[in-house]
Amino acid sequence: MSAGDIFLWELLGTAVLVMLGTGVVANNVLRRTNGNGGGVLFVNIGWGFAVFTGASLAAPSGAHLNPAITLALAVADKTEWSDVPVYMLAQMLGGVLGAVLCWATYKLQFDDHDDPAGTLGVFSTAPTIRNPAWNLVTEVLGTFVLVAFVLFSPTYKNGDGGIPDFGNSALGYAGVAFVVLVIGTSLGGPTGYAINPARDLGPRLAYAFVLPIRGKGRADWAYSWVPVAGPLVGGVLAALLYLAYPA
Amino acid sequence: MSAGDIFLWELLGTAVLVMLGTGVVANNVLRRTNGNGGGVLFVNIGWGFAVFTGASLAAPSGAHLNPAITLALAVADKTEWSDVPVYMLAQMLGGVLGAVLCWATYKLQFDDHDDPAGTLGVFSTAPTIRNPAWNLVTEVLGTFVLVAFVLFSPTYKNGDGGIPDFGNSALGYAGVAFVVLVIGTSLGGPTGYAINPARDLGPRLAYAFVLPIRGKGRADWAYSWVPVAGPLVGGVLAALLYLAYPA
Amino acid sequence: MSAGDIFLWELLGTAVLVMLGTGVVANNVLRRTNGNGGGVLFVNIGWGFAVFTGASLAAPSGAHLNPAITLALAVADKTEWSDVPVYMLAQMLGGVLGAVLCWATYKLQFDDHDDPAGTLGVFSTAPTIRNPAWNLVTEVLGTFVLVAFVLFSPTYKNGDGGIPDFGNSALGYAGVAFVVLVIGTSLGGPTGYAINPARDLGPRLAYAFVLPIRGKGRADWAYSWVPVAGPLVGGVLAALLYLAYPA
Amino acid sequence: MSAGDIFLWELLGTAVLVMLGTGVVANNVLRRTNGNGGGVLFVNIGWGFAVFTGASLAAPSGAHLNPAITLALAVADKTEWSDVPVYMLAQMLGGVLGAVLCWATYKLQFDDHDDPAGTLGVFSTAPTIRNPAWNLVTEVLGTFVLVAFVLFSPTYKNGDGGIPDFGNSALGYAGVAFVVLVIGTSLGGPTGYAINPARDLGPRLAYAFVLPIRGKGRADWAYSWVPVAGPLVGGVLAALLYLAYPA
Repeated sequence: MSAGDIFLWELLGTAVLVMLGTGVVANNVLRRTNGNGGGVLFVNIGWGFAVFTGASLAAPSGAHLNPAITLALAVADKTEWSDVPVYMLAQMLGGVLGAVLCWATYKLQFDDHDDPAGTLGVFSTAPTIRNPAWNLVTEVLGTFVLVAFVLFSPTYKNGDGGIPDFGNSALGYAGVAFVVLVIGTSLGGPTGYAINPARDLGPRLAYAFVLPIRGKGRADWAYSWVPVAGPLVGGVLAALLYLAYPA
Repeated sequence: MSAGDIFLWELLGTAVLVMLGTGVVANNVLRRTNGNGGGVLFVNIGWGFAVFTGASLAAPSGAHLNPAITLALAVADKTEWSDVPVYMLAQMLGGVLGAVLCWATYKLQFDDHDDPAGTLGVFSTAPTIRNPAWNLVTEVLGTFVLVAFVLFSPTYKNGDGGIPDFGNSALGYAGVAFVVLVIGTSLGGPTGYAINPARDLGPRLAYAFVLPIRGKGRADWAYSWVPVAGPLVGGVLAALLYLAYPA
Repeated sequence: MSAGDIFLWELLGTAVLVMLGTGVVANNVLRRTNGNGGGVLFVNIGWGFAVFTGASLAAPSGAHLNPAITLALAVADKTEWSDVPVYMLAQMLGGVLGAVLCWATYKLQFDDHDDPAGTLGVFSTAPTIRNPAWNLVTEVLGTFVLVAFVLFSPTYKNGDGGIPDFGNSALGYAGVAFVVLVIGTSLGGPTGYAINPARDLGPRLAYAFVLPIRGKGRADWAYSWVPVAGPLVGGVLAALLYLAYPA
Repeated sequence: MSAGDIFLWELLGTAVLVMLGTGVVANNVLRRTNGNGGGVLFVNIGWGFAVFTGASLAAPSGAHLNPAITLALAVADKTEWSDVPVYMLAQMLGGVLGAVLCWATYKLQFDDHDDPAGTLGVFSTAPTIRNPAWNLVTEVLGTFVLVAFVLFSPTYKNGDGGIPDFGNSALGYAGVAFVVLVIGTSLGGPTGYAINPARDLGPRLAYAFVLPIRGKGRADWAYSWVPVAGPLVGGVLAALLYLAYPA
């Protein structure tokens, strides 16, 4: 597949994933929405099927949508290293674009919100108890589960060059949605399960530099490396396990 | 497929879709129901599987059930333009019929309700903050996601003449249900995600001219063009993307 | 398939369906359970996957598990009329057995409950507003949707003699679970969606004549014909539609 | 398959299953988590898809992940008796490991919790009303449903030597997730549905002897035999039914 095609599908898929995923948080926390106070299961289900939808659109490029998955697939020898920068750039720009589209969807609610300084949480994760080392452990474990599923499940393992063989899978990308859902319910308590650098850093960049939210707060750059480093480490650990024991 | 068969299946499928979808809102908001106060996730799940059920019944005609999908499939050269009026008429009548069936299901609860003037919300959408331009943006984005999924996902792209090749799809219409669910959780906060002119205008016509609800309120015609125009624009944008980059 | 085999699988499947379905209501309403106050979506999801589980076990006999489905399949010429009594007897006994197993599961909670006279609702449905004619309409519409899905969906239409061709279906019995879930969320508000005579009358018989619940209330025989007649009428209507327009 | 491979996949799968399953309870009950007070449906969905995820990873060994399933498959002549100790040892160690990983995920929250003596419930089950005989009945019935599904459903019955033929199944391990979900909603009220000795005893051992939780309480050994014996009995009953009536 050409670099241009990879770029297109990863940009589209990640933008839709992030628009829908940050959208469910906006719906849950902003006032004057239909979903205000929808709760944690509501948010976890929204993120799970956000991944399903974005991944379904990005099927032609293998639906990585996540630098941790791209890096792991390269380590596992299923994606060309020369394609890695294209994947990651598209994913990061997709994360920025998705945040902008979420903002456009909820523009009137952002204008009306009574705590504009607290709106970073719509776009990027933050720990409930701040401790970089243990927060990192949580992100490593969550991403390990995601990437191990991607590598070992029948969806991905039959495909060539990191492109999953969708037709051979019973559930297609619904399987990934179920895994993201359970990572949220089960491992998302301490850090909000970034498990994807593009999903966290992209919207954080958008929040800091692009979005015209009146009265918006700070982007919390001090924490921003954890949801980047943790997923990359977790993904590589899963890839090393896969290299040692290919299913 | 004959125009008569298209009409039959689209009428049946849209009527069931709208009966179930408006039904979950009735269950949530009317008093003296088992679902009173069920909440936003309850409503979103109901609408998602309402689409699954209606679409499963309308499989022979391709299960458009939505003028935005029919228009997009025509633009994308997957449905004959000559069939478009038949599809849309059946969908609109199905929307009216579905609203009538919802009313029949909850007839006793409508009679008993303490706010009959506020019952339009069971049938048609309304913005939480009224601003036609931004409300339109929200509806365009939501419908773009729905129609992009329909066009790019394996369910539809293999079929002939707008008829999806159900057998080649792992999830069948459950995939559409998941997408409608996440559009609801994630983009439904500002406008209630009509994303389908027949789902909104059909029940609005029924509310205004057909349903014998004692003390019913006005049909809010001033807003009624937004959930028609937004979905049509969003669907065409997705079709243009598909024409430029067929997956 | 022999009458004995039909009897065995329908008995097993219906007993599991009813044990799980009545169990989620017990979990929701009895005190000193983990699910107390779980809410309407909790109950609807429980019933949906109760049907999935019972149907999966009864696949060899076609997983009717419901006299309304058996009657409709006979009318639609997909089940032998001579097998109908065997199916229905097994289903009714399965309903009784399932109620007994639910009681055994929650025996300690029934003993401890503070409103033993109000425990009929664990086992059988009741209208929130009593009006036999309109309650019947609600049950007819709900069962019509269920049976139309069974007849028109790819799960069932390819099979011989009422035995669905499970292998040809993408979702198998999960499709039926999704439809039962949405009937619950969307049409279950007024009458509790019996949509199955064996699911309602079987447990009612168990409640009246078998279960040793201390201080139990009356079985409400005056209403008991509605959740029998409504589903049978709704199923036959769907079968007549199928005969007129086989998908 | 070699004993070493069985050990590896069962250890990995059970560890992930238990990390995710105990994790959703930690998220629900510990303070200063995103999921605090998420509720019973949140917990039931988390456990259901925890099983999906662990089972998907352990597909090469047949994804038993549960001594009750291994014993039942041996009784049903689908697993070699000589492999049973390897399966069970790996499952039990996986249960211990999963509990440790859950603790690591929520380390900061355990340190901060205001009721450290009450944290056994994150890891192991307890009855809401203590009565060993009836608690045993509840666990027997729940596990019977799980193992009957595993034996009779198309996922498992076509495979050789206890290895399910994943490719022949429409839903793969999602079917098991749906069944675990409904066992939780419907039969989990009295005892918390252990339905798996490794899921209950493994974490209990970890709680008693491994986890460094400050101020932790007792491990309730008096009850610990019920969630071991009940599942083994329930599994054997399902296997005997399968031997008498193979689907």
